[in-house]
Amino acid sequence: MENRQPPASYSAAGVDLEAGALANRLIHEQAQTTFSPGVLGDVGSFGSLFQVQGYREPVLVSSVDGVGTKLKVAIALDKHDTVGIDLVNHCVNDILTCGAQPLFFLDYIAMGKLVPERIQAIATGLARACREAGCSLIGGETAEMPSLYAGGDYDLVGFIVGVVEKPNIIDGRAIRPGDVLLGLPSSGLHTNGYSLVRRIFGTEPSALKAFYPELGRTLGEELLEPHRSYYPLLKPALPRVKGLAHITGGGIVDNLPRILPQGLSARVDTSSWETPAIFRLIQERGGVDTREMYRVFNMGIGMIVVSSPEEAAGLRALLPQASPVGEVVEGKGKPGVELVGV
Amino acid sequence: MENRQPPASYSAAGVDLEAGALANRLIHEQAQTTFSPGVLGDVGSFGSLFQVQGYREPVLVSSVDGVGTKLKVAIALDKHDTVGIDLVNHCVNDILTCGAQPLFFLDYIAMGKLVPERIQAIATGLARACREAGCSLIGGETAEMPSLYAGGDYDLVGFIVGVVEKPNIIDGRAIRPGDVLLGLPSSGLHTNGYSLVRRIFGTEPSALKAFYPELGRTLGEELLEPHRSYYPLLKPALPRVKGLAHITGGGIVDNLPRILPQGLSARVDTSSWETPAIFRLIQERGGVDTREMYRVFNMGIGMIVVSSPEEAAGLRALLPQASPVGEVVEGKGKPGVELVGV
Repeated sequence: MENRQPPASYSAAGVDLEAGALANRLIHEQAQTTFSPGVLGDVGSFGSLFQVQGYREPVLVSSVDGVGTKLKVAIALDKHDTVGIDLVNHCVNDILTCGAQPLFFLDYIAMGKLVPERIQAIATGLARACREAGCSLIGGETAEMPSLYAGGDYDLVGFIVGVVEKPNIIDGRAIRPGDVLLGLPSSGLHTNGYSLVRRIFGTEPSALKAFYPELGRTLGEELLEPHRSYYPLLKPALPRVKGLAHITGGGIVDNLPRILPQGLSARVDTSSWETPAIFRLIQERGGVDTREMYRVFNMGIGMIVVSSPEEAAGLRALLPQASPVGEVVEGKGKPGVELVGV
Repeated sequence: MENRQPPASYSAAGVDLEAGALANRLIHEQAQTTFSPGVLGDVGSFGSLFQVQGYREPVLVSSVDGVGTKLKVAIALDKHDTVGIDLVNHCVNDILTCGAQPLFFLDYIAMGKLVPERIQAIATGLARACREAGCSLIGGETAEMPSLYAGGDYDLVGFIVGVVEKPNIIDGRAIRPGDVLLGLPSSGLHTNGYSLVRRIFGTEPSALKAFYPELGRTLGEELLEPHRSYYPLLKPALPRVKGLAHITGGGIVDNLPRILPQGLSARVDTSSWETPAIFRLIQERGGVDTREMYRVFNMGIGMIVVSSPEEAAGLRALLPQASPVGEVVEGKGKPGVELVGV
């Protein structure tokens, strides 16, 4: 990685420069597997260079995200090869909502103590998800900060830049009453709701290693299921789409209104899809109010596609996993969501 | 900020959604003061849109950085309006070394507990430095993670994208033996060496509030002096420059070789500039070896400009603060730095 330099640290203050250099080499090896032709390699040392090619009126679309307290589950289970996938896919989905193709990605890893094997595992996940999205992992920063991060704790942040032709920007502006809402299944909690889950089930590895018949696996395996990327699936469907809402923190209730024009609202029928077992388990064990569940979790729907009724049939042929979950209706002022069946 | 959404949190797990919404509004107010014509405002909700204009063969240059444990000084003194300046200027300087003009910036703020006033102070610094660099603060993420960040602790990460015309990329490739090294003064420690400083002086606010006659101010004021941006100064000089090394973690010894071609080295005369008082104070109080000082701190030189001897006179007219600090010499294999006078 061009601009990944050794952490500003020194053995005198309890920091391991050699571990830093090794960690950087391990990430660099992974990163190189992701490079697309746009990467201008080995040019420039402090910055990462990328040339956008083949666009007539390119608009850059960028986003920054963290993995949140899902990290705490990975740390408790000492399993670090999936959080990188979570991070990249969250970012890829965010810019996908504007119709953007991913171009490049940079990461930030801050640890109390640099553990090269752990960084390698994280980088493996980052690189795998980047390759699957055609996105080049071109830079990053690794920081060792024992005074900020306790024990084996770390934080992981990702930045993505993608591109869309200006006339093809998806912005929800064309959404009208009567438009159809198609829901795409999530792969689990994605990256939201982990603070609540940890409060309900506790943070002991033993709780995470308990097997649940209704999940068909352990709680930890279920909770670490990677955040799904919708890019490969939705890419060919983008020309038929009026709006895309990535269902992250705040659930359908907070995220769907973000793409609706003023004066419109959404009516979502929660009986139109089956709530996955993990959400039923969380609600039951935690005694969580149903409305609260829909405000915290994706409840099984990770992306909502808005299209005209005319395009919906064609879209459903392209997206066999998509199912109608509601419709756009006239509203008053600020867009909102009416949850039917809650 | 388009893609800044409320943190994935909920009162039941001890997290304050209202504080999150207020924090986001405060950042958004600051961010809007930075927007350049490239920002496509209010389009897209999950991603931030930017259109690069006026370049024939644009190459994007990106970088990610943190502020490191300088944050701990800000936290100890409860003064948060300068760390944002540090972050932006560090990033601006990094991509400047490739000859890039800053375009846009995204931030990540993770706190144990969201304090809107603190976030506003951080955002004020981010926005001020962005305005000065002509860089648009177009996105960010605010995360409240009490399980990762203790008490008033937080981390702050920045991501920058700039642009350079492909033929104007500065990459050090043209550097030859006999080329001149010009040093530009740093404003202080910039963002490196704080773990060592904290080990020497301790972390109590009382230590940071002590007045030092040789500094003409308190230790805390000196340590929080913002990382200087070299962009306004160097912008008109870029066509005359063969290489730029940003002196960050690892000092001159680690950073200058990053831009030198194989087979070349640098000879730096440390007696050619006066070491600022803060570094003499740190060395004296900590009993730090001089070589170690040069590996940890910038020692008064924050950016090194490499030019041909022919261009050097013209450059010095453009950069009255620059002083010759050494020259490029033949080396063996991997580039290195010979520190004369240490």
